[in-house]
Amino acid sequence: MLEELKEKVYKANMLLPKYHLVTFTWGNVSGIDREKGLFVIKPSGVDYDKLSPEDMVVVDLLGNKVEGRYNPSSDTATHVVLYNRFKNIGGIVHTHSTWATSWAQAGRDIPCYGTTHADYLYGSVPCVRNLTKKEIDEDYEKNTGILIADEFVRRNKDYEATPAVLCKNHGPFTWGKDAKDAVHNAVVLEEVAKMAARSEWINPNEKEAPQELQDKHYYRKHGKNAYYGQRDIKVMV
Amino acid sequence: MLEELKEKVYKANMLLPKYHLVTFTWGNVSGIDREKGLFVIKPSGVDYDKLSPEDMVVVDLLGNKVEGRYNPSSDTATHVVLYNRFKNIGGIVHTHSTWATSWAQAGRDIPCYGTTHADYLYGSVPCVRNLTKKEIDEDYEKNTGILIADEFVRRNKDYEATPAVLCKNHGPFTWGKDAKDAVHNAVVLEEVAKMAARSEWINPNEKEAPQELQDKHYYRKHGKNAYYGQRDIKVMV
Amino acid sequence: MLEELKEKVYKANMLLPKYHLVTFTWGNVSGIDREKGLFVIKPSGVDYDKLSPEDMVVVDLLGNKVEGRYNPSSDTATHVVLYNRFKNIGGIVHTHSTWATSWAQAGRDIPCYGTTHADYLYGSVPCVRNLTKKEIDEDYEKNTGILIADEFVRRNKDYEATPAVLCKNHGPFTWGKDAKDAVHNAVVLEEVAKMAARSEWINPNEKEAPQELQDKHYYRKHGKNAYYGQRDIKVMV
Amino acid sequence: MLEELKEKVYKANMLLPKYHLVTFTWGNVSGIDREKGLFVIKPSGVDYDKLSPEDMVVVDLLGNKVEGRYNPSSDTATHVVLYNRFKNIGGIVHTHSTWATSWAQAGRDIPCYGTTHADYLYGSVPCVRNLTKKEIDEDYEKNTGILIADEFVRRNKDYEATPAVLCKNHGPFTWGKDAKDAVHNAVVLEEVAKMAARSEWINPNEKEAPQELQDKHYYRKHGKNAYYGQRDIKVMV
Repeated sequence: MLEELKEKVYKANMLLPKYHLVTFTWGNVSGIDREKGLFVIKPSGVDYDKLSPEDMVVVDLLGNKVEGRYNPSSDTATHVVLYNRFKNIGGIVHTHSTWATSWAQAGRDIPCYGTTHADYLYGSVPCVRNLTKKEIDEDYEKNTGILIADEFVRRNKDYEATPAVLCKNHGPFTWGKDAKDAVHNAVVLEEVAKMAARSEWINPNEKEAPQELQDKHYYRKHGKNAYYGQRDIKVMV
Repeated sequence: MLEELKEKVYKANMLLPKYHLVTFTWGNVSGIDREKGLFVIKPSGVDYDKLSPEDMVVVDLLGNKVEGRYNPSSDTATHVVLYNRFKNIGGIVHTHSTWATSWAQAGRDIPCYGTTHADYLYGSVPCVRNLTKKEIDEDYEKNTGILIADEFVRRNKDYEATPAVLCKNHGPFTWGKDAKDAVHNAVVLEEVAKMAARSEWINPNEKEAPQELQDKHYYRKHGKNAYYGQRDIKVMV
Repeated sequence: MLEELKEKVYKANMLLPKYHLVTFTWGNVSGIDREKGLFVIKPSGVDYDKLSPEDMVVVDLLGNKVEGRYNPSSDTATHVVLYNRFKNIGGIVHTHSTWATSWAQAGRDIPCYGTTHADYLYGSVPCVRNLTKKEIDEDYEKNTGILIADEFVRRNKDYEATPAVLCKNHGPFTWGKDAKDAVHNAVVLEEVAKMAARSEWINPNEKEAPQELQDKHYYRKHGKNAYYGQRDIKVMV
Repeated sequence: MLEELKEKVYKANMLLPKYHLVTFTWGNVSGIDREKGLFVIKPSGVDYDKLSPEDMVVVDLLGNKVEGRYNPSSDTATHVVLYNRFKNIGGIVHTHSTWATSWAQAGRDIPCYGTTHADYLYGSVPCVRNLTKKEIDEDYEKNTGILIADEFVRRNKDYEATPAVLCKNHGPFTWGKDAKDAVHNAVVLEEVAKMAARSEWINPNEKEAPQELQDKHYYRKHGKNAYYGQRDIKVMV
């Protein structure tokens, strides 16, 4: 079942080592079929070298495994919550990519210091608080998802405009319109995290980019007045 | 038309991923035919993996597309201004290369700390101010070009001796005698930006290189008394 | 003799350049056959490009060379002590990997700042003191092993839960259930060391990850309640 | 003439891009035939991709070109002085490798923070002062060599035990028993420079490694009591 989606999610998983976002098995990508209410995710702890499309695991939106010879990613419950709460997303990525994880460990939001950030991620990338001991003991992975979704509500942030989050002392999650787009955002986040850190070290008094510059770049690429890229012509990017 | 120039500009564009100056489509190279008053530039948002010489777009010095099935780079209007104002340049590069962009985000000129810098870039690399909201709303890309050219006038800097600039909270532009030379300068800038940052971290009281050392290295490679390289023999570098 | 173990130790040694943990010959891996009381180790100063399984040297637990045309690693005496004192380990790695060595040179324990660390290394990674002049003159390599083992006793740390140590002004040793697992831990240590440094630079007031989060991640992967990976199915990781 | 030496010097030059020590043409290696009093050096400004053994230039110890269709490296006069003053060396390397150059730009000696450094470079790596305007105008490259050699005398340092130097606001020179050994030391210097910087950032109060540890590691590899590597057996390293 879902053979086409499995193939896409497999390929999106294989982009993680290609873009140097994972060491060993430290990452996972999923993609959803919204009509069927099922998503496909990497199996837990299986090495990227050994992975094949048929190893992908099918899970429903209650978190039940529907098909697959392997256990799904240990972070599956987080994906379940995010698909339920963020209705318009089609793919989710979790990695321990080094610069984004360094910010997560530092427990800080990533400020928008430039147009590279503004082109893809509207405003700062939020870093959510640590889960309490009770939340961890009760259901760690599920509560991670709830915390992320609640944080976007609490801050009144649009999850489609800012498709990335940092979990304190843990690492990043990104999402997108499909699995591949979520990986694209994971690559962007890593680049942005790297340059934000270096910019602060070069200028400790650094300020966020002016709001009008952030808006210009974000809306140059997104929304009805966008003019970046090829609007009338099909181009693979 | 301009098939030879398209081929050269295409090849210069492909050097960007080779030298690790771009992620995804975040960069563009153009090259000009001064006699015809036309330049050739990368199409907007097209992936480097898919690019071919015939995808290059031909644009005139008023910014009109003259030939090409794609839209030209979204930064085309900046290239137009620079070709009009910097009469002796033959190629322009824009990237979000990580170290140069980190300096741009930090909003600082890159001081000349050593001979690697002095060999190619005379004096510090200027970082221009943010555009105002009015300048952004009016014509962002065109006003970026005007700001750069005006800054070289304001500082009385020679654009041929210092073929690089940083745009605050955005990233670098470099130029050169042709497209390939402009890419060469983009590589130099990235190296120089990296070493300048690290040097400051190693010695927070770091000073610029003595003027006589800067002059020695710059004029060892440039001008009528240059003696670096092979003056009488054709050597590909 | 021990042809199978030699092959495994050879392969584990070849993972060091693959994971960029060594420059030139600056590293060594060994693996032990506990039943026979013999271990196999890389020869001293032989380049990884020239290495073959039959070059591996067989050593007993008194440190005597039992077989091999080469001298064993100059660090062999350290391996001997660790195999004698840490009864449950099956492999040992020493490298000068750059981030772990930078922490060793800094003379600091690596705090547990996140789940990447907690997944594999319980609590902070200890940095042992310098050997005294007397300890160096007497038997440098042997006393290095004694110092490491004594430090785990002194701090009441479980060497199986924290399979890594830093030697001040020198570099890291890691161990594991076999040679390959020890290399795995060397890769983890390098990643963790890199992210710990960057996290401190991003947030100088950084605190260790909450104990409950460290416990959650460690025990999600280790012990009888572990649920990460594939428990009932044989998976190569 | 000197075909064998040309081949060796060519190969040593090609190790510079292999070990990521050069960008474009920013480096040069030479090797000497002490009996004939002639050395072989890379031509100036020729790209590594185009280089072949027959492009190497033969120069005598007065700095005269003896054979070759190209001009020798613009740094040839520095090599001439070093070969005349450092009688026991057989090869010299100059690069702009990024970490060593960052220390040179910072104008600081590299302290010996660990055994990686002590294994190859006895004590701190000296950074020589800037040349005066007069010294630059008179004979920049020759005076660079004189300054280096004089600095070793002034500090009473043994150039064989510490085969590396930094030129302030410029970059490193290393040397060795032949061209390949000099490249080996250039690689070591770059690693050592990288780890020294990071160690200081991890611990701003960092101290040099204890003298007895430096001595132990240096003499474990050098001199009559050395026991690292394969003493009785021919091993390629």
